[in-house]
Amino acid sequence: MFYHIKELQYNAKPERPDPILAKYMQELLGGQFGEISVAMQYLFQGWNVRGNGKYKDLLMDTGTEELAHIEMLATMIARLLDGAPVQEQEEAAKDPIVGAILGGMNPQHIIVSGLGAMPADSVGNRWKADYIAASGNLLADFRANLNAESQGRLQAVRVYEATADKGVRDMLSWLIARDTMHQNQWLAAIQELEAKENIVVPSTFPRELEKREVSYTLFNFSKGNESAKGRWANGRSLDGEGTFKYVESPKPLADKPVLAPAPPYIHNTRPSLLKNDMIPPSNC
Amino acid sequence: MFYHIKELQYNAKPERPDPILAKYMQELLGGQFGEISVAMQYLFQGWNVRGNGKYKDLLMDTGTEELAHIEMLATMIARLLDGAPVQEQEEAAKDPIVGAILGGMNPQHIIVSGLGAMPADSVGNRWKADYIAASGNLLADFRANLNAESQGRLQAVRVYEATADKGVRDMLSWLIARDTMHQNQWLAAIQELEAKENIVVPSTFPRELEKREVSYTLFNFSKGNESAKGRWANGRSLDGEGTFKYVESPKPLADKPVLAPAPPYIHNTRPSLLKNDMIPPSNC
Amino acid sequence: MFYHIKELQYNAKPERPDPILAKYMQELLGGQFGEISVAMQYLFQGWNVRGNGKYKDLLMDTGTEELAHIEMLATMIARLLDGAPVQEQEEAAKDPIVGAILGGMNPQHIIVSGLGAMPADSVGNRWKADYIAASGNLLADFRANLNAESQGRLQAVRVYEATADKGVRDMLSWLIARDTMHQNQWLAAIQELEAKENIVVPSTFPRELEKREVSYTLFNFSKGNESAKGRWANGRSLDGEGTFKYVESPKPLADKPVLAPAPPYIHNTRPSLLKNDMIPPSNC
Amino acid sequence: MFYHIKELQYNAKPERPDPILAKYMQELLGGQFGEISVAMQYLFQGWNVRGNGKYKDLLMDTGTEELAHIEMLATMIARLLDGAPVQEQEEAAKDPIVGAILGGMNPQHIIVSGLGAMPADSVGNRWKADYIAASGNLLADFRANLNAESQGRLQAVRVYEATADKGVRDMLSWLIARDTMHQNQWLAAIQELEAKENIVVPSTFPRELEKREVSYTLFNFSKGNESAKGRWANGRSLDGEGTFKYVESPKPLADKPVLAPAPPYIHNTRPSLLKNDMIPPSNC
Amino acid sequence: MFYHIKELQYNAKPERPDPILAKYMQELLGGQFGEISVAMQYLFQGWNVRGNGKYKDLLMDTGTEELAHIEMLATMIARLLDGAPVQEQEEAAKDPIVGAILGGMNPQHIIVSGLGAMPADSVGNRWKADYIAASGNLLADFRANLNAESQGRLQAVRVYEATADKGVRDMLSWLIARDTMHQNQWLAAIQELEAKENIVVPSTFPRELEKREVSYTLFNFSKGNESAKGRWANGRSLDGEGTFKYVESPKPLADKPVLAPAPPYIHNTRPSLLKNDMIPPSNC
Amino acid sequence: MFYHIKELQYNAKPERPDPILAKYMQELLGGQFGEISVAMQYLFQGWNVRGNGKYKDLLMDTGTEELAHIEMLATMIARLLDGAPVQEQEEAAKDPIVGAILGGMNPQHIIVSGLGAMPADSVGNRWKADYIAASGNLLADFRANLNAESQGRLQAVRVYEATADKGVRDMLSWLIARDTMHQNQWLAAIQELEAKENIVVPSTFPRELEKREVSYTLFNFSKGNESAKGRWANGRSLDGEGTFKYVESPKPLADKPVLAPAPPYIHNTRPSLLKNDMIPPSNC
Repeated sequence: MFYHIKELQYNAKPERPDPILAKYMQELLGGQFGEISVAMQYLFQGWNVRGNGKYKDLLMDTGTEELAHIEMLATMIARLLDGAPVQEQEEAAKDPIVGAILGGMNPQHIIVSGLGAMPADSVGNRWKADYIAASGNLLADFRANLNAESQGRLQAVRVYEATADKGVRDMLSWLIARDTMHQNQWLAAIQELEAKENIVVPSTFPRELEKREVSYTLFNFSKGNESAKGRWANGRSLDGEGTFKYVESPKPLADKPVLAPAPPYIHNTRPSLLKNDMIPPSNC
Repeated sequence: MFYHIKELQYNAKPERPDPILAKYMQELLGGQFGEISVAMQYLFQGWNVRGNGKYKDLLMDTGTEELAHIEMLATMIARLLDGAPVQEQEEAAKDPIVGAILGGMNPQHIIVSGLGAMPADSVGNRWKADYIAASGNLLADFRANLNAESQGRLQAVRVYEATADKGVRDMLSWLIARDTMHQNQWLAAIQELEAKENIVVPSTFPRELEKREVSYTLFNFSKGNESAKGRWANGRSLDGEGTFKYVESPKPLADKPVLAPAPPYIHNTRPSLLKNDMIPPSNC
Repeated sequence: MFYHIKELQYNAKPERPDPILAKYMQELLGGQFGEISVAMQYLFQGWNVRGNGKYKDLLMDTGTEELAHIEMLATMIARLLDGAPVQEQEEAAKDPIVGAILGGMNPQHIIVSGLGAMPADSVGNRWKADYIAASGNLLADFRANLNAESQGRLQAVRVYEATADKGVRDMLSWLIARDTMHQNQWLAAIQELEAKENIVVPSTFPRELEKREVSYTLFNFSKGNESAKGRWANGRSLDGEGTFKYVESPKPLADKPVLAPAPPYIHNTRPSLLKNDMIPPSNC
Repeated sequence: MFYHIKELQYNAKPERPDPILAKYMQELLGGQFGEISVAMQYLFQGWNVRGNGKYKDLLMDTGTEELAHIEMLATMIARLLDGAPVQEQEEAAKDPIVGAILGGMNPQHIIVSGLGAMPADSVGNRWKADYIAASGNLLADFRANLNAESQGRLQAVRVYEATADKGVRDMLSWLIARDTMHQNQWLAAIQELEAKENIVVPSTFPRELEKREVSYTLFNFSKGNESAKGRWANGRSLDGEGTFKYVESPKPLADKPVLAPAPPYIHNTRPSLLKNDMIPPSNC
Repeated sequence: MFYHIKELQYNAKPERPDPILAKYMQELLGGQFGEISVAMQYLFQGWNVRGNGKYKDLLMDTGTEELAHIEMLATMIARLLDGAPVQEQEEAAKDPIVGAILGGMNPQHIIVSGLGAMPADSVGNRWKADYIAASGNLLADFRANLNAESQGRLQAVRVYEATADKGVRDMLSWLIARDTMHQNQWLAAIQELEAKENIVVPSTFPRELEKREVSYTLFNFSKGNESAKGRWANGRSLDGEGTFKYVESPKPLADKPVLAPAPPYIHNTRPSLLKNDMIPPSNC
Repeated sequence: MFYHIKELQYNAKPERPDPILAKYMQELLGGQFGEISVAMQYLFQGWNVRGNGKYKDLLMDTGTEELAHIEMLATMIARLLDGAPVQEQEEAAKDPIVGAILGGMNPQHIIVSGLGAMPADSVGNRWKADYIAASGNLLADFRANLNAESQGRLQAVRVYEATADKGVRDMLSWLIARDTMHQNQWLAAIQELEAKENIVVPSTFPRELEKREVSYTLFNFSKGNESAKGRWANGRSLDGEGTFKYVESPKPLADKPVLAPAPPYIHNTRPSLLKNDMIPPSNC
């Protein structure tokens, strides 16, 4: 169960309105690796943990904090949209600055949300749950989390670089710091689980059931062998179970497949038409 | 540029048709972490690498191999659909097995693809590029890759457990082995980059620009402090730049936000109506 | 900012596992009018309110409660999936009940979420923010909310009717009661605003700027005039500004449009080809 | 069955081309609450009415009129795109106005539709049926309709304010008037049904089956009790079946859930690893 | 502008309810090539024709008819859902047939639409405008139409084969006949335009601006040269402008691309890290 | 199985960076008819062919080539994004050109992809498999292919016209030439199949099972009979099986449908409420 207080976790005040920057900030709110994504990802992982303990608690701690970050970004975006000069009056219509803003801002910030934040990314794609992962296997999921925080911090840094607004930069420097913590934190949790299990997810599948002869092989499918010089092609495998191998010219291990014809009631192209004889063209 | 040969990388022959299993297998082909996702993810990462060298080569090697895995899965699914007993004739209509299959299989395998594989997951969601990541920052992206291979191997293992078909299990044991390699490989690449950079992505953003006072803090937003016992709340941070800290009762650092009213031409609720006075209800 | 406690707002324990019912329950969690939708809708509306006061507070109160309902449903679904008999062993493979469940349940509950809830609806569509509305105009938005609670309660009632599980029905009877409150509550808020403004949203647009001659007219575009007998075609309009009128045979008020040709660099069909002359067919 | 005439219901002629305004107008055509949405919503509701009579007729009347509105908007958008100066010739390339338009307009208006309207919103999201509702319960659905007309009129008004083009304003003043009618009309239909049933949808579910002790309770989940002053927290409930109640400090009514472990063949994190013991970190 | 009459264009009465068949029929209503797709595709093409004449009229004739087909399918699906035995009473709960139907039917037909048709396909994907094309170039668009009618008739035939219900087959035999007409009709229109223009769309782009040396070349990118035996690799090209050529071993015509490094403020992987030196692994 | 070489099939070098043009080029890479669509469409069609021979080979040849075109476009887009002037420094912030580019370019090219290509179209919609078709019936599918190449070449030509960059035009003139070949090629394959089968897909459905009385009828549903002058309304049908007929005033062939009431447990509007009696309005 959740409780809300109206105070913000941290400041969300820009120096001045900037509707194009508001469009950019939407990426951090409602993009693939934005705050909605991490909030929903951590909460669903937490709710699905079968058992209890510190991992579940950590997921709920962090997921709940991310809800506060959504709130900060929504507030910041609304303020960046304050008084966007979009009313077309006789005079205003002649102003090229109004035109540039009308062309460059997200039209839905005017028409749809009434100068409010949208649950959408910087090009207007609405947030979707396709962005998140919650598998029930925590080592897999913590890797999803580490990825999300890596992509998310990278994006926040890029927006930071794209603006000179001191208020926006102040808030971003807070969010970037939190992403630093979250990368550290998921990495710590990953290291714990890797130490207890194996680095290969899932660690519980009996290794003898996989084709071990290709479990440590790098196939060179892109001509040129720069990749042969990597750690992944030399030495003991990281999971300690094998030795890396490099195959310069990979060969197929199975024949050309030929699929049986479909039954007539499917009305695919009839088998007899799939022959190789050429009919003289009828292009008159 | 790509070349294709018609031989398969590995066998893709089931013991017998099974249209419900075909529906399940779609997850591994066209799901969030299926073969289309990893193929497209690695290829886009490879094409976007600015510079050259072993990382780009590794991405192109692996992305190209994943194309072969799409092919294997498409072939397997078509064969699992061989002769699905879906024609409703007078007699067949009375057969409960036909009914069960018609109810349980993916209807699009009959109506849309004509007993072929679909670029879709196990519930029929068509594949979408929202599943993939390619950021230009390789440490971030290799973490996305490690996650994808972890989730992907987990899903392949679950399908392996759900079938007793020896042909399907044979193919899955190959794909599971390749996922073992790919987890090892991305982890090796990650360790190299972490050693050269820092574990925090992006490593190039000056640390003094973030609010370092919260870069290593775990806020306890979910009551109960099991999470205080984790590595992430104790000792030196993994990036070597700070010390973890646990905050039992996190407090807000900013006031309640009050947004300025929108200009009249936006036609939001008028500010005067946002007062707290209660009007006697007019529910007659 | 939000805080979480681990206790549930209300019970979420089924009598027994039932993976097909779990699939049905997903509609209430991640469907168009499920709990994710109302949580996100109310929170975004609340964050976007420009000003403060009781409406904003009401939105945040209710949005925060809906987060607890997501949690209850996620918990219930995980329990309905407990020990789903999906492992295909030699013996199990012969059991038609296993087959029926494999065919009827959501495959992603096995393969993707590992017996956890998904942020998706009952047919597997992942949740998307296209479902929600937050316009900055509270009368419009409260109508969106009243609709969401009406559709949502209807759906919960239908699932209630579809199961005999006492634990599921117990939880649903709680959620249905909350939907009763929420319908009452949004209706009360709507009545307040309608009394202060006008029933027509937005009330701030000057009426003389609309074509008032058609502001109260019902056009009979579907032959048969049953609709003429409705309140909407007779008497004073509900907004008190006009009189309803019924037009038996509506006529167009503008000519056939003819669009000017596109410039050549667009490469549309050339204007000269859009003439009516018929060319003798060349079907040899 | 439908018939079409080529005349427009009302004028759709702008004073002059304006490709950026064309982008804005797409919201009213193909957005969440645009004309495609209301046409499809009313028609599907009408087709699904089980029985006949004035409500079905009203739905078909209005749904059919909305098809005419799609047509008007499509015509208007094509004309706003007339002769968009997008051809990049040596000279034109140097013109900053061409550049501003190329940057600000919807690229698909050039590349995809050849200066025609798109079934998409103002940021280019293609229309999707996720926007509409048709539940079989008319009181629920008429609330969806009232919401759609409220959001839709609000959006039309905002676009009206954003342009000074007399032709566009003329057409919008017609559409805004129709939205006035449609809000009146759905409200009239809602009042009829509310008088015959109860305000709570569905009215046919026996009230004794819901947990009536929370059917009229406002839980204060967002600190601060401004919401206590609303009609929804005081007096008789609007449905006449209870009395509103305000709970200052809501408490959970169920314990912390602990989910049972998944069976081994699901390969979730092993239960033994979900313990709270901390492993000394291996970050070398 | 459109008018509606309540009579159906053709019968839409099944012999008996069948909720699983209702699920299948959804493909023909709301699938990629279902009736919503063709209605919207033809209407948008018609509205976007720049000029007038028989092609525009033909598009509007056919688009308007397709609206009647949506109506027929919606009616049929509602009737197939009549009295679906989904109420779980003590006794019914024990009936395996109820279970099979609950597992095999579309749950949204119960929970969401209340036994009505959905704007969705047979696996529950809601209809989306991504399915349609309207380019302003009629030869291109008529080819889209011919494809849509080919795929659509194929799907209708497959559903026809999958059911023995005489009422459903009666309606499908009507729709299949209309698809026969529509394939004939679009082909006739295509032949007219091909005779007036050239078979290559767009015919108005000066041929000397394309690299004509590869305008008639088949590159053999998939090993094995069965494709060399096709008409497409031999003789005069169909557009009469060249001669087909077969290239056994296609070679690249450009060098390996090396992308310049991104500027530092993008925070991609630093160029110096993209070197090929291998670092000894730190996997402790 | 696939192999990759790092050389490009053809040049992909612009004269100079142009981030707005990069946004436009995305349509050709990741749009509905972009290179990802044709690659995936041909490969899935090829994998699903049941049997072998020249058609399968042709599909694999062409699908594999399209992978090379994705690669060329990705490379071109990355180069058009080289050094986009998006860093907001004190000075740069004052530059209106920077502002125009920030407003006009795709923000995700900065924030998400780090100046790399995206698997998305020109307005930012991510690629989705809803765009492609693979039915198992090759005549249907080759028509899908001919359409895709027609739409695709049209779009490439429009982008060609919109830029003066010699490098971009050079690459486009190559891709346009390939589209010329591909239109010729699919048309040649279509003519072969049409000669062997019948022009109506599927040709294998017995004609006596369709309602032949409407198989060649044009219904005039849009008033005005320009369409009567087309080939499609006069003479022998193109499939040689009938004679075209024009029906000036089409009539319905079935009665008004009246749907039976839903069972009570569905909680639709009660049948007794669907009567036509009007209740005096309660609008106080």
